[in-house]
Amino acid sequence: MIVVIQAHPHPDHSRANHALARAIEDLAGVERRSLYDLYPDFAIDVAAEQRALGAADAVVWQHPLYWYTAPALLKLWFETVLTEGWAFGAGAEVLRGKPCLWAVSTGGEAHDYSGTGMHAHVFDTFAAVIRQTAQFCGMRWLEPVIVHGAHRADSEELAAHGLRYRQRLIELGAEDGGHV
Amino acid sequence: MIVVIQAHPHPDHSRANHALARAIEDLAGVERRSLYDLYPDFAIDVAAEQRALGAADAVVWQHPLYWYTAPALLKLWFETVLTEGWAFGAGAEVLRGKPCLWAVSTGGEAHDYSGTGMHAHVFDTFAAVIRQTAQFCGMRWLEPVIVHGAHRADSEELAAHGLRYRQRLIELGAEDGGHV
Repeated sequence: MIVVIQAHPHPDHSRANHALARAIEDLAGVERRSLYDLYPDFAIDVAAEQRALGAADAVVWQHPLYWYTAPALLKLWFETVLTEGWAFGAGAEVLRGKPCLWAVSTGGEAHDYSGTGMHAHVFDTFAAVIRQTAQFCGMRWLEPVIVHGAHRADSEELAAHGLRYRQRLIELGAEDGGHV
Repeated sequence: MIVVIQAHPHPDHSRANHALARAIEDLAGVERRSLYDLYPDFAIDVAAEQRALGAADAVVWQHPLYWYTAPALLKLWFETVLTEGWAFGAGAEVLRGKPCLWAVSTGGEAHDYSGTGMHAHVFDTFAAVIRQTAQFCGMRWLEPVIVHGAHRADSEELAAHGLRYRQRLIELGAEDGGHV
């Protein structure tokens, strides 16, 4: 089972998020947990989230980049679900070795992420916060799926990103239901 | 007026946060906005926050580092208060040129933040998310106040950090009420 933690506060306004979500919606062996749908009041059910992670063979974090990192509700999820003694620290074994795939979309174009670009840093600098969160829990960090230029990408480009994302989940063990 | 945005979900459990907060509590010309007290339900009053920022000569973000970045409520504050057209983008001038001081405490020791340390990166790598958030709004990033080893520091060390923090606010224009 692959658990996909989806965190988009305004999914209807995001073509990129929509394209990624649609591309995997018919896959079997995937549990989608849309945090903003499950917890609109930010009251995360920690036990339910930990149960889902415990049963997962792989974990996916799918979200748009907001202010260079995860949206607030996913940040709260990190804080409340990835607790000491359960996710890290002495005796914490639940997440150890599980693959973690980061699927992130950015409004900025790839060239905006450079020392001289609009965001003044290469993208990997901002990725460090998320990657190290996974690695501190002993998860195995996979090459992320990064969709830059989410606002301006045309339908064909978004479909290609979706297909690439779908393929990555199939490689992780999801089963193709014949969508493509 | 210096506006200090304080974001600590469990202030009573944090000796470092307590020491920093206490060190500036008698300063005049400082407005303290404790987000977890103001908005325990995560329902941020955006207009009130923007008014406070608009009136500020300097902005301070004071928080513990949680999962390598800001606590969730401060992240939500970034997302809801620092909006396009108001904080950045065409015509956004409110924050331009205002000094921004980051006062952050970490459980980890300074030596944990290195390529070979427990957190696998130098601290500045994680700082980039916060710094670039300020700079994208045109704020003038100041040398931050960083308190490492917050869990293990003794009272004397914490008092010294508090004094250093207090001094930085006085340099920014806060007025000493005779606390020290």
